[in-house]
Amino acid sequence: MQYDIPMREAVRSFQPSDEWRREQGLAGVELHLLDQTRTKEVDGGLDGDASSVAGKFDSKLAVDELPGWEGYVEWEDYPDKKKRAHEILASQTFPPPPEFQLAPIPGTNPVLEGIRWKLWHRAVGGRLAVVPEESWAIVLKEKSPDMLHLLQFPYNGEPPKRLVTAQPITPNPLHFVRNHGGVPSIDSSAWFLRLDGLVKEPKKLTLSDLQDECRFPRMERLVTIQCSGTRRIEQILMYAGEGDEMINAPWAEGAIGTAKYVGVSLKKVIKYCGGLVEGAKHLELAGADTYFKMNEAMNYVISVPYSKVKAHEVMLVWEMNGELLPKIHGAPVRAVVMGYIGARSVKWLYRITAIPEPTRAPVQSREYLYFNQQVGKHNQRWVDGIQIQEMPVSSAIMSPWNKQVVVHEGKIEVKGWAYSGGGRWPERVEVSADGGFSWYAVPIENLSAKYKFAWRTWHMWLPCDVEGWIEIVVRCWDNSLNTQPTQIRNAWNWGLHVTSSAHRIKIYSVNKAKERTRARLEEFEKRGMSFVPITRPTEFPYMAWEEYEEYFKKNGPRDVEE
Amino acid sequence: MQYDIPMREAVRSFQPSDEWRREQGLAGVELHLLDQTRTKEVDGGLDGDASSVAGKFDSKLAVDELPGWEGYVEWEDYPDKKKRAHEILASQTFPPPPEFQLAPIPGTNPVLEGIRWKLWHRAVGGRLAVVPEESWAIVLKEKSPDMLHLLQFPYNGEPPKRLVTAQPITPNPLHFVRNHGGVPSIDSSAWFLRLDGLVKEPKKLTLSDLQDECRFPRMERLVTIQCSGTRRIEQILMYAGEGDEMINAPWAEGAIGTAKYVGVSLKKVIKYCGGLVEGAKHLELAGADTYFKMNEAMNYVISVPYSKVKAHEVMLVWEMNGELLPKIHGAPVRAVVMGYIGARSVKWLYRITAIPEPTRAPVQSREYLYFNQQVGKHNQRWVDGIQIQEMPVSSAIMSPWNKQVVVHEGKIEVKGWAYSGGGRWPERVEVSADGGFSWYAVPIENLSAKYKFAWRTWHMWLPCDVEGWIEIVVRCWDNSLNTQPTQIRNAWNWGLHVTSSAHRIKIYSVNKAKERTRARLEEFEKRGMSFVPITRPTEFPYMAWEEYEEYFKKNGPRDVEE
Repeated sequence: MQYDIPMREAVRSFQPSDEWRREQGLAGVELHLLDQTRTKEVDGGLDGDASSVAGKFDSKLAVDELPGWEGYVEWEDYPDKKKRAHEILASQTFPPPPEFQLAPIPGTNPVLEGIRWKLWHRAVGGRLAVVPEESWAIVLKEKSPDMLHLLQFPYNGEPPKRLVTAQPITPNPLHFVRNHGGVPSIDSSAWFLRLDGLVKEPKKLTLSDLQDECRFPRMERLVTIQCSGTRRIEQILMYAGEGDEMINAPWAEGAIGTAKYVGVSLKKVIKYCGGLVEGAKHLELAGADTYFKMNEAMNYVISVPYSKVKAHEVMLVWEMNGELLPKIHGAPVRAVVMGYIGARSVKWLYRITAIPEPTRAPVQSREYLYFNQQVGKHNQRWVDGIQIQEMPVSSAIMSPWNKQVVVHEGKIEVKGWAYSGGGRWPERVEVSADGGFSWYAVPIENLSAKYKFAWRTWHMWLPCDVEGWIEIVVRCWDNSLNTQPTQIRNAWNWGLHVTSSAHRIKIYSVNKAKERTRARLEEFEKRGMSFVPITRPTEFPYMAWEEYEEYFKKNGPRDVEE
Repeated sequence: MQYDIPMREAVRSFQPSDEWRREQGLAGVELHLLDQTRTKEVDGGLDGDASSVAGKFDSKLAVDELPGWEGYVEWEDYPDKKKRAHEILASQTFPPPPEFQLAPIPGTNPVLEGIRWKLWHRAVGGRLAVVPEESWAIVLKEKSPDMLHLLQFPYNGEPPKRLVTAQPITPNPLHFVRNHGGVPSIDSSAWFLRLDGLVKEPKKLTLSDLQDECRFPRMERLVTIQCSGTRRIEQILMYAGEGDEMINAPWAEGAIGTAKYVGVSLKKVIKYCGGLVEGAKHLELAGADTYFKMNEAMNYVISVPYSKVKAHEVMLVWEMNGELLPKIHGAPVRAVVMGYIGARSVKWLYRITAIPEPTRAPVQSREYLYFNQQVGKHNQRWVDGIQIQEMPVSSAIMSPWNKQVVVHEGKIEVKGWAYSGGGRWPERVEVSADGGFSWYAVPIENLSAKYKFAWRTWHMWLPCDVEGWIEIVVRCWDNSLNTQPTQIRNAWNWGLHVTSSAHRIKIYSVNKAKERTRARLEEFEKRGMSFVPITRPTEFPYMAWEEYEEYFKKNGPRDVEE
């Protein structure tokens, strides 16, 4: 064991660690009242406190080989280096990932640390040893202190519910991040892109080349990127599933974000390379981050079909919401593959290779698989999973939160998002207050504008007469009239991907439009008592005794006599 | 505040505190494998370690007034004493009950302590002050160390799943207990029963009188007693409900027990008193335990309709499974009201009063109410609840446990109980492996004998082809063809009583009858690896790479090309 050196104490962020647990109703005691007849929620600020950790490293196996490319280790070009890394990793035993599916989910923020990934980086050593700390420093600098850090390393984070749909365009510090390795720091002036494989004229292009509008017309698109793990928490809370090396982080509804990206169409770049050689049908994209799979070290590699590129649905971007792409989001240049799972939008892009078949790299061939329910731990084969590309239609409720006590006057305000992948868009959003039996349409004017590759945010006042526990459910119909499975079970799968079932939350409805309820609330107020938590005994009688006697006089005794 | 004296350290029992959490799948990591192809579960022993706490008390408000009746305080005869107790209680603030519905259920045993009830006893003082400790000592002496103590005081306890249906007759140390106050210690030679109110000839009867077979023929019956809180944990895990002063303990499936009781029919005793005066229609039964409700002290009082007595369905019993009635179960004499909720089977019975209407005592009029779902914290009235008398048809699965990984060869062994109240009995038990879509009947020979007032235990081998998470569900049809609601939601109610919906557990099915699964399990074994927890990454490849390539060669690439 090389790892008995204690890991450096993680720098904690400022978001209260229990916020997410409260949102999800996993810590229902402290705050579970949303009185819509009185107050409005106040959004938290977005200011973050920056802290930076200086990197120091030695030069052994994993080295920076290019000036201006820090934390980038090239693996794909060096089979011997890969082999040596494999030997190092295979010769040691790493601790199993922490249990968070069968045991309660930790109440900390970061929720999970990613200790195995940190240890793998440390085991390979060299430049990689300090990458976890460097990456975390970048998180603290670039991301909002409001973020929920599901996994510290590789960094996985999402905004809290109150901020997910606060604006139809997600501010950069709040945009979710699902990284698969450390964050390299690449100088934009040093950066270049290799185009090779089955392209007619292999080339290297710098950022200035890409930005030369004489060669490549500028392209700007509003694009929603969604992780296929979005809303995984619902699947986990139903049944435990795959615990992969990559850690299936317990994402909530915030692993989706929408930004205006500026860059160029990859199609134009391929054309600039003379187009593809006969037989080339896919483009393999490689990122500068180091990825690990079953004791192998590699760069992050996926592929997209060329047909997707031809439709101008793959961009190379350097600008996000009017700012230079943040480091954590792939600076200086990342791919944005519209309407596909986020895992295809490679960050820190450095190489594009034209190939005849989809890449066999593990992220494409052995991960992000969508299994039939008969497939699990004891019979799984990679070919039993559909490789996830386009995301299906989905939606989520951002307010109220699970287990909130909602005081209202016959209508409950509900807010959320809706999205469909593959260039389809939400055409109708429907909300139910009775667990999915009857559905109300969100008024068209309460939906944000529609785009081919972006979500729509929405809100509505949902009629609710009922007292007590109800289930609010949302579903979306896209322009192809696809809709969502009604129950989690319908779409539960071993890999815990694509939680596309209708999102449902339990809330305790207190309808002040009802005379008896209003009188009771006034009674609580008069006595200076809180009526939450609802599980606390009420300290005054539920009715007058005369009224009780009157009831039985009028309706007869409990048991029949003849 | 009189109560800042720390409570005496509770004596802990010997059952591992996490057993119940494992049974319920609330602590799924440590043990969640049940390999039915290999081993059989071994039942734990029933030996308990007895410890006894000597009582000491002073004589103030609450006193022992009869020799041989220890810990019995008479309240109903003394309005002034009741008034004084009310003043004492109302003048002070007691801590709210601990949260266990919205927060995670404690992993301790006892699960809940009952601190408010202890403080109420201490506040009233006198003889009552030491009753909590005395009662707990009796628990430790009379009950099995395997018991799950849901509430230390008033004592609420049930056996663990592995023992609930181990025998069709429940051994006394394992029979569930739902007490509502402390345990009095009453000498059987000092005991007598008062019969008064609208009986023609009020009398006092000693135990010898009752046992005089010349006056009262001996009666023996096999009777199942069920608490209306049985399986409440399922309702709690779905939605939080009422948190009453009496604490709605999170009962599992063991709040039911079956014993052979010996005693006399109450009808014969009433006849011995000359029968009832015209207009008398109910019998009020009083127990020697002290009960509290909204700052009032009282004896435990309920009533039963005389029609029930006339049918010989109310017994006064002194023997349980061939032994003298244990103290914790109501020695020397308790009522057994067949087919009714356990709360009517008054323990430490000392008085029976004939009355024209059901008693207005709180246990009858304001508790054990079955509400419509629109009734909750903010609009509840007592008259909105049906007073629970007869229990409806129900059933439960005792093996496997929730979240177990069950290895089998196409059939899963399932065991449990089924019961119906009111003199109806289980006529058919059905089990589903697909969440309640298709049902298999338990073979008639696998059901224990039928009786008018007792449960039937059952077991069967349930066909299961499926790999992965399944939901096993049980339902019972009684002789009147009543059956159970299919989902918890159907029968969820604010008071969290009568969890009569079909009991369902999630298990992870590993079907060794399937070649691929068998091979994978062998692979785990060969490598000396455990395949649980199922969330731990598998350390060897899921398939050969050649097989992967073969698959795509044969079936074409993931995305269509034209």
